[in-house]
Amino acid sequence: MDGTLVEDESVDGGDVGPPGLRVDPVGADGPSADVPLVPGGVIRHKHGYMRRYFFPMEPVPVILTDTNLVKPALSWNLEYLEKNLGDGDFSVFYSKDHKFKYYDQAKYNDKVVPDFTPPMSQATMKFSEFLVKFRQWKHGQPRMYLQHPLNDSVGKAIKDDFLAFNWKWLESVQKEHNWGNLSSNLIYIGMEGNVTPVHYDEQENFFAQVEGFKRCILFPPETFECLYPYPVFHPHDRQSQVDFDKPDFESFPKARHLRGFECVLEPGDVLYIPKYWWHHVESLLGAGHTTSINFWYKSGPLTQVEYPLKPQRKVAMIRNLEKVVTEALGNPFEVGPLFEALALGRYIKVNALSHSELGSLNRYPSKPNPQVSTIE
Amino acid sequence: MDGTLVEDESVDGGDVGPPGLRVDPVGADGPSADVPLVPGGVIRHKHGYMRRYFFPMEPVPVILTDTNLVKPALSWNLEYLEKNLGDGDFSVFYSKDHKFKYYDQAKYNDKVVPDFTPPMSQATMKFSEFLVKFRQWKHGQPRMYLQHPLNDSVGKAIKDDFLAFNWKWLESVQKEHNWGNLSSNLIYIGMEGNVTPVHYDEQENFFAQVEGFKRCILFPPETFECLYPYPVFHPHDRQSQVDFDKPDFESFPKARHLRGFECVLEPGDVLYIPKYWWHHVESLLGAGHTTSINFWYKSGPLTQVEYPLKPQRKVAMIRNLEKVVTEALGNPFEVGPLFEALALGRYIKVNALSHSELGSLNRYPSKPNPQVSTIE
Repeated sequence: MDGTLVEDESVDGGDVGPPGLRVDPVGADGPSADVPLVPGGVIRHKHGYMRRYFFPMEPVPVILTDTNLVKPALSWNLEYLEKNLGDGDFSVFYSKDHKFKYYDQAKYNDKVVPDFTPPMSQATMKFSEFLVKFRQWKHGQPRMYLQHPLNDSVGKAIKDDFLAFNWKWLESVQKEHNWGNLSSNLIYIGMEGNVTPVHYDEQENFFAQVEGFKRCILFPPETFECLYPYPVFHPHDRQSQVDFDKPDFESFPKARHLRGFECVLEPGDVLYIPKYWWHHVESLLGAGHTTSINFWYKSGPLTQVEYPLKPQRKVAMIRNLEKVVTEALGNPFEVGPLFEALALGRYIKVNALSHSELGSLNRYPSKPNPQVSTIE
Repeated sequence: MDGTLVEDESVDGGDVGPPGLRVDPVGADGPSADVPLVPGGVIRHKHGYMRRYFFPMEPVPVILTDTNLVKPALSWNLEYLEKNLGDGDFSVFYSKDHKFKYYDQAKYNDKVVPDFTPPMSQATMKFSEFLVKFRQWKHGQPRMYLQHPLNDSVGKAIKDDFLAFNWKWLESVQKEHNWGNLSSNLIYIGMEGNVTPVHYDEQENFFAQVEGFKRCILFPPETFECLYPYPVFHPHDRQSQVDFDKPDFESFPKARHLRGFECVLEPGDVLYIPKYWWHHVESLLGAGHTTSINFWYKSGPLTQVEYPLKPQRKVAMIRNLEKVVTEALGNPFEVGPLFEALALGRYIKVNALSHSELGSLNRYPSKPNPQVSTIE
């Protein structure tokens, strides 16, 4: 059951290792005799070996400035797109404020949360129609954000540009880190000041800036506890319940401990957002509209679970526990009370001495222990 | 007194703003009328304005791959250096294990900690002499690590290479982020497997990889609490007391909460290490010797203190408090007991509800409060 619990949803074909920086445990073909033995053992890296330490490691989110990943798209201004994007249908979101908080249409249709009202509305239109509305927009009107997968409906010029993206580099990264398949490319065209509120995705993400400037605020996976994501059955699954404009510290006290890692993307920059990293994305005010393209990759299969579990794996585990229990109970609203009864006054008190609020997702157990109780 | 307390030591000439990503508060020349007002106000950025949120922000450490910063040095193999590095004297450290834990020679000479024994020894030698020893080295002998400032004693070829570094780019970064002066360039030549144990510096750092592969493990400034730095008067000031090979969790329980951000630098890569970020640097085992050059920059002067204080500022404040109290007491060994008497059972208990172990350095006070008591 452990193997299943820590598995995440985005896993797909391939035959080796976890994604991110490659850190395979050293096996039978381990370090040669000239590698001195070290206390904690070593981890294989493509260029050599690294010492093994007692705490979990994560890749650093990186801003890549020399990939030329979407170089042909750097000429995609609105006029060029108008001429060449074709006459397919595009999804355009409308929001009464600056926030475009994603919701899962399928979970909304399920009516699991009966009183859920979508915080934005969605329309489908031709690109030309979008541009007319986009250009005529005035302060006070609902804001607009086009978000649509790039697909076969685009015109020839765009198709040629797309084929001239730096796929060779992408494939080398995909191979090096044992990622799964590319799952989709979205194009985003937004108004200055538009905000995509903080959320996490379950896939690896290269986020390429094409026009305008986007500020990204990043939080590592174990910030889970401070960002209070909605339950998995909720249409806002993977979104934070914390409103950055009006934080409700009474309901979400640990939000006080938030600290953002901040960067501003310029045209040509590519931000690597590792899966399960929280991100808030904001088009700079007073700096014009923004165009971005992203690349989502599934994970390669998990061949070996390493302890202590990384924060990402614990988030995957929490998601799986929520799903299993939601299904078993047959009523999503009994899930919270059941987990409370299971944990409160029992596990948390027992572990009080080693319990820290931000730290409990990446706590190092005195004896590595794959049991469910370690997630507290 | 507040302004002094949060000031850090590396501050030097210039006339504006804090280092890192530029986030000036908007003043009289604030956003133009077409920037919609937002709940928390806005922050000026060189390309526009960003929404202001309730939590502190930090720059992301970045691996830059296209700077060509030390491109001419990429041909600095040992033979080239032997021929061209000149006949100046170089500092070479020797360690009986793989760890080269820095100590402050002046603080050692002060004998403030009477029983301190340096964990490594230092020798001065010509480069040719270093190379003979370096090449003849055998497992079991003390390891070697050359660390020396690049200075006028180098030969003409090296000087020309140095002048052809990408100073133009460096100056643009320095200017954009309002950094102070370049304070030094060190060259590092180490054996595979050498480790520089985790520590922080008080300056901005560009760390350029020239030959071989270095793994860097990074921790953000508020990890201060989990890494238990030595007191400021100790020769190991700015170093962690936690031994990554044999962590003593009884003395340093919060070390259990550590989580590293990991990357491996290849020749040509430049890692930006923001000041006060903790870093452990390790030459990969089985991957040959390593050569690196770094660039340390002082901070520009702090013109305006923003609340909530950033974790870096709180670390600067803690350092200043330690210095003031150490001097006032006249006996460094009374410092710990005094701070304990000041805080224990008083401030910590009062704030128990909002206190988190990892979070207390970046806790958001319910009412932003510049007083000393907020550092707990």
